[in-house]
Amino acid sequence: MGRHVLSELAVRGFDVHASARHANIAQSGTRATWHSCDLLSTEEARRLVISIKPDIVVHCAWVTEHGAYWTSTQNLDWVMSTLTLIAAAKSVGTSRFVGVGTCAEYAWGGAEPLQETRSILQASTLYGAAKDATRRLCEAFAQQSGMSFAWTRVFFLYGANEQPNRFISSLARALVRGEPAPMSSGIAVRDFMDARDVGGAIAAVADSQLFGAVNIGSGVGTTLRNAGETLARLAGKPALLRLNALPDRPNDPAVLVANVERLSQETDFQPSISLERGLQDALDYWQKEAGL
Amino acid sequence: MGRHVLSELAVRGFDVHASARHANIAQSGTRATWHSCDLLSTEEARRLVISIKPDIVVHCAWVTEHGAYWTSTQNLDWVMSTLTLIAAAKSVGTSRFVGVGTCAEYAWGGAEPLQETRSILQASTLYGAAKDATRRLCEAFAQQSGMSFAWTRVFFLYGANEQPNRFISSLARALVRGEPAPMSSGIAVRDFMDARDVGGAIAAVADSQLFGAVNIGSGVGTTLRNAGETLARLAGKPALLRLNALPDRPNDPAVLVANVERLSQETDFQPSISLERGLQDALDYWQKEAGL
Repeated sequence: MGRHVLSELAVRGFDVHASARHANIAQSGTRATWHSCDLLSTEEARRLVISIKPDIVVHCAWVTEHGAYWTSTQNLDWVMSTLTLIAAAKSVGTSRFVGVGTCAEYAWGGAEPLQETRSILQASTLYGAAKDATRRLCEAFAQQSGMSFAWTRVFFLYGANEQPNRFISSLARALVRGEPAPMSSGIAVRDFMDARDVGGAIAAVADSQLFGAVNIGSGVGTTLRNAGETLARLAGKPALLRLNALPDRPNDPAVLVANVERLSQETDFQPSISLERGLQDALDYWQKEAGL
Repeated sequence: MGRHVLSELAVRGFDVHASARHANIAQSGTRATWHSCDLLSTEEARRLVISIKPDIVVHCAWVTEHGAYWTSTQNLDWVMSTLTLIAAAKSVGTSRFVGVGTCAEYAWGGAEPLQETRSILQASTLYGAAKDATRRLCEAFAQQSGMSFAWTRVFFLYGANEQPNRFISSLARALVRGEPAPMSSGIAVRDFMDARDVGGAIAAVADSQLFGAVNIGSGVGTTLRNAGETLARLAGKPALLRLNALPDRPNDPAVLVANVERLSQETDFQPSISLERGLQDALDYWQKEAGL
């Protein structure tokens, strides 16, 4: 996701600076000045902000390892890193701070699209609680210190470079290899958005005056089954999809869809990638990765 | 407050270790082993916990400077310190972590006693938001890692050693000097508790199985006017009290009283100091301080 935020910010004319822990993570294709920095080191994070003196900070980093991030103790480290960054940003006169949150901050279980201020916030995981607490802290700090602040609650992103065991990528990898693609019953409804559109939306939020939380999603619910069947059809291998081959996850909420009124009304963001196009591109990516 | 927590824990038979930034802050009168540690240093805080390997951590430290603590950026530093402490505690096998919160975590404005889980949480200050976010983070971390955890929401404490410009101490200091003691209209209703009882309550919570947030208060509302008039009467100088000499604070809530059912039902705490006795002791303390 981060790479798309960078390129979309560059398209908007920003002078983009980016950081990576190791120099070799830095993406040479992106129009950004790269800095080597371990954001989990208070000292390094503070030094980075002080040396760049950015007008806007867009903080995308967090623990994201598939499966592990829900419960990782590193969630606490990222809370601390974020607080270090916003305090350092304030000290050098940064005017706006944008953080990345998650739909896991909301109470899950309802069927209605989740809305930033009206829906109940009730994280059921350490990851969700850490993101929610970070938003509360940054928002209170920003409000008091006269800093502009937005918090982007990302729903279900997918696309090229995705971690290989996630839902879309695992199906796409199997399909391009001509192997059976197992999935659950697929009755769960989710709000999918291509990572490029997510990057575009976060860049649009950064480039707006929107204050507080804003959902990043398509606003449209899709069953996992529909996503899987579309992938299999686009791959030309509908018979390889194995519905019900995996159990439904216990306690998995039936519906998770974003209300995207704030995003569409308070920023200039326009989604550009349909689910069909995004899934096709994901297939093409995994086909190339597989050397096929 | 911290000193009373220490002595009450010692009375309960715990082997108490305490930390202070500077050796000379350590109180020689307390039955505790003192450690020199700057808890705002991640490295020092972690090393302290690892060296003691405590069964229970009771974390009372925070920025408390009268007037400044509501908005101090140090609130963020104390969030980070608390996260460092609970993660370090977990790593050495600590079974229980007790933090200190505040009635400022609640939405203010209602007339009903505030209840831990039913009342709305809506901090209107950075201090309240930082305490609230810390509770959310620690509770999620503890729940996930199988650690026992309690969060003590302290209402209005007063007593010996209080910062001299707070409500009770400023009135008491003026009265023992025979000077006019100015106050507001005093219509606001607050839940006062002597710092010794607050210490006893926190020690009782530490020595219980209570999980989550618990109010620390008397459960009884008293107008500021009544507290001021009681002080002036006990000092034998009722004529020195100057009601309405100070403006009421803007946006000051009318009523802030704790529902103390959890404290009384889930711990063995028994309050021992009436408001009258506590105010008399505060007067005696300031009289001695003034060298009178």
